[in-house]
Amino acid sequence: MKRIAIDMDEVIADFTSKHIRLFNEKFNESLTLMDIQGSKLREIRPEWTNEILELIRDPLFFRDLIPIKDSQEVIRYLSTQYEIFITTAAMEFPTSFTAKYEWLKEHFDYLDDMNFVFCGDKSIIHADYLIDDNSRHFKNFKGQGILFTASHNVNEIGYDRVDSWLEVKEYFASR
Amino acid sequence: MKRIAIDMDEVIADFTSKHIRLFNEKFNESLTLMDIQGSKLREIRPEWTNEILELIRDPLFFRDLIPIKDSQEVIRYLSTQYEIFITTAAMEFPTSFTAKYEWLKEHFDYLDDMNFVFCGDKSIIHADYLIDDNSRHFKNFKGQGILFTASHNVNEIGYDRVDSWLEVKEYFASR
Repeated sequence: MKRIAIDMDEVIADFTSKHIRLFNEKFNESLTLMDIQGSKLREIRPEWTNEILELIRDPLFFRDLIPIKDSQEVIRYLSTQYEIFITTAAMEFPTSFTAKYEWLKEHFDYLDDMNFVFCGDKSIIHADYLIDDNSRHFKNFKGQGILFTASHNVNEIGYDRVDSWLEVKEYFASR
Repeated sequence: MKRIAIDMDEVIADFTSKHIRLFNEKFNESLTLMDIQGSKLREIRPEWTNEILELIRDPLFFRDLIPIKDSQEVIRYLSTQYEIFITTAAMEFPTSFTAKYEWLKEHFDYLDDMNFVFCGDKSIIHADYLIDDNSRHFKNFKGQGILFTASHNVNEIGYDRVDSWLEVKEYFASR
């Protein structure tokens, strides 16, 4: 059985919508997802980099993110044909461990928690496919990287790309 | 550069000594490491399995473990010649994430936390070597497993085995 490794933030958990909302509340702004296309919030407002990162360091930030559309259904479907591992770069925000674990248990209760991986450098991941919104993780990954479209990566080229979980389903239907 | 993945409990962190001490305090017993050779505490006292596991579920259990003798020095030495990843089966005790992270930052401050991996099923680990006290992790591991002697595994045969970190150093000196 082949194995698919799947990132969390921006792939199965809608990280950016909450991040922008909290930023707008804190700084009385009205940025939208369209405003940050092709970059990250801290690149749009570099003068507030520390404050922007501080929002994510709240231990509860990751606990109530909205699952990305169709991710729960499509991963359930794929799990009948592939081994599924959730591989998230949690070491960048060590305060997030518990919230991320609880979130996965809530929204992906059909996955075995023995298949959750909290890591940093994803070159440690042994899998056939890696679905991720950060292309840097593909560089030393031995399998096939699949770039999941997120606002910050819309201008990147040179990767297999999927725009949605329905496209992920199609991608694997043709394997 | 080749890569060595290294387990935490019973390999770099002295898990069992504290576990036995807490058990003895709670049940007014005087078990020693010798008493549990070839098995685990919960196999010696199966009637207290739940209580024995409960001791480990304390979020602080892992915070003050004693580093295994010579592990800090030998891993520092090996890190000049190998990529070092710490790969721990933290998903069995999700309350342990923060304590394990802080422990690593305290005792192995020379390692990059991007090389810490909290996982369950270690077949996800992509490395050339895995030093672990649980041989079950070697079954689907693609690299070379190295069994680090712990009281529960003394009777297992069929693996490359090391009894101490000085033996680990010798093992890699001859590669």
